[in-house]
Amino acid sequence: MEPWEEKNTWLGGGGEDSDIVISTRVRLARNIEGFSFSTKLNKKEAEGLVQTCQTRLIPLAKQEGWEWVALETLSPVSKQVLVERRLISRELKGKDLPTAVLHDPQATISLMIGEEDHLRLQVFRSGLALREAFETANRIDDQIAECLPLSFSHQYGFLTTCPTNTGTGMRVSVMLHLPALALTQKEIQKATNSMQEMGMTVRGPYGEGSQASGDLFQVSNQRTLGASELELIQSLENAVGTMILWERKLRKDLGESPTFLKDRVYRALGTLRGAHILSSSEALDLLSMLRLGRLFNLEGLPSHETWNRLFLLTQPGHLMENAGRELDPTERDLARARLVRKILSHPDDSLGTRP
Amino acid sequence: MEPWEEKNTWLGGGGEDSDIVISTRVRLARNIEGFSFSTKLNKKEAEGLVQTCQTRLIPLAKQEGWEWVALETLSPVSKQVLVERRLISRELKGKDLPTAVLHDPQATISLMIGEEDHLRLQVFRSGLALREAFETANRIDDQIAECLPLSFSHQYGFLTTCPTNTGTGMRVSVMLHLPALALTQKEIQKATNSMQEMGMTVRGPYGEGSQASGDLFQVSNQRTLGASELELIQSLENAVGTMILWERKLRKDLGESPTFLKDRVYRALGTLRGAHILSSSEALDLLSMLRLGRLFNLEGLPSHETWNRLFLLTQPGHLMENAGRELDPTERDLARARLVRKILSHPDDSLGTRP
Repeated sequence: MEPWEEKNTWLGGGGEDSDIVISTRVRLARNIEGFSFSTKLNKKEAEGLVQTCQTRLIPLAKQEGWEWVALETLSPVSKQVLVERRLISRELKGKDLPTAVLHDPQATISLMIGEEDHLRLQVFRSGLALREAFETANRIDDQIAECLPLSFSHQYGFLTTCPTNTGTGMRVSVMLHLPALALTQKEIQKATNSMQEMGMTVRGPYGEGSQASGDLFQVSNQRTLGASELELIQSLENAVGTMILWERKLRKDLGESPTFLKDRVYRALGTLRGAHILSSSEALDLLSMLRLGRLFNLEGLPSHETWNRLFLLTQPGHLMENAGRELDPTERDLARARLVRKILSHPDDSLGTRP
Repeated sequence: MEPWEEKNTWLGGGGEDSDIVISTRVRLARNIEGFSFSTKLNKKEAEGLVQTCQTRLIPLAKQEGWEWVALETLSPVSKQVLVERRLISRELKGKDLPTAVLHDPQATISLMIGEEDHLRLQVFRSGLALREAFETANRIDDQIAECLPLSFSHQYGFLTTCPTNTGTGMRVSVMLHLPALALTQKEIQKATNSMQEMGMTVRGPYGEGSQASGDLFQVSNQRTLGASELELIQSLENAVGTMILWERKLRKDLGESPTFLKDRVYRALGTLRGAHILSSSEALDLLSMLRLGRLFNLEGLPSHETWNRLFLLTQPGHLMENAGRELDPTERDLARARLVRKILSHPDDSLGTRP
């Protein structure tokens, strides 16, 4: 089953407030006693770390149905695909040392080994589901702690490579789709500022260092120390709640200017159907308008399932996986345009008009 | 018969070098003995002028099948339609005094009465046909001279209100479609400069004061004095010939980048099909790409006939005529988008796929 067909993946399109919240992520940073922090590991020690994790975690992985992937066995394209499915971070992909990832088939759980911290557990949900994702993360964290000795200080909490993660080692984040706010450049700036004032970090869809595009914003808690997990979740929920109200208000206004809305949406559809050269960032921006239009029940727009396919398959790694070889950026822009035209040119198959 | 269906109109799409030269115009400025120049006329004198012309020219008009239109009987919308069909100038439309125009049903000949000069004769042809248009203008000029006493000095030639027109009183111009040059902003600047160096004036599609849009450029001779009509025609032919070679060279290059070409053309088609708000200048720019694509035999593009319909019917006056009332600019942008979507959404009817 492809990831966009699976309702339980982060990209499933369901869940609470899914008109605005694409997905929820809870990430826990953990380290293992007896090993230096990742930044200090040499190749041999890194091998030892991966080896130890593999041996100790195999029973848990089996029980949970997780797959073990040693990253050095993968091609750069396959690694990029994992980044785009959010199973590994760009940092893990870039590592020269032995690393690995354990993940479930639905891409809702991933445990990276050898990232900035020895272990980085990620739990994803579609829509807004911070508490549910946290409970799952918590449960898995307990299971991991039974397999491996985790570095923990009674004074500071979980010890991490970077002090900003020390304490809970937790970062909670949500990916928000804010097209109405983004249509007014000033409003999105105000929104970003206001989230920062509430102690949140705002990033692009692929985390640290990624540009905001497609009107997608990843919002996460800045601090991890000095607050309980539930307090962190509560503060993110508050910030996200504010954004949701703001975006919905502006969408309501948009709904009262249906011509303006249709103009933006159908220009985007027309451009996607016509383009023969299409950059990743332009594709995301245009897809954003289609998602917005679909939420307003405008006709002839791709279903959420098709939208999810377009979203994932137009990413560089997925394009290259589809082509069966590496593509330079120019080739990708051609392949992306071709793929988009193909998917959008079969309204009966792909535009969600099937029952 | 609508103007875009008539092969003999300036917008017919035929004629020599019609891949680049949309149309040719020869204009003669003439004044009538016994009347002050137009700028000095009061209402009564202007009435007298129009009256005299009507009386004296009726036999000729009858013989040639021309229609007499007194402009004060027309609504502002109808006047604007005449401007867009190029039968009257924007200056004539703006006059407060009595004015008139005589024109043939195909809109290839128009004789304005009461413009900057008493008489302004225009002859239009589609494609490049300066000599043919000149011969027609010359023949009509002789016929007019038999009906009315024209102001002529053996020293200076035909006398005109503005000294820049004195002499031949002739301005020859062609409307060029230069999309390949315009796709490279630098090249179009070079081309414009080089035409000016050859003594040509470069304007937008609706003459003096109009912005270049749709990659359409009206090129005309700057001087009228001290050269014969045939010398003026020759110098414009030379300048236009240079432009034609230049544009064709760049189109050949474009043809070697078919993906780039298709990207521009089908994005334009997609945008025209999707837009719900469409300004006149954006419409012209997008239509320019469709015309270019059609010349490269790309599929699914409007025929020249449909293109001509789109070109004329999206002009403000034609939109208002179609709506049966005046429209403000915002209403026109909606009406224009609606009309374009309608015409482009019936490929069987309108896209020239009929035999």
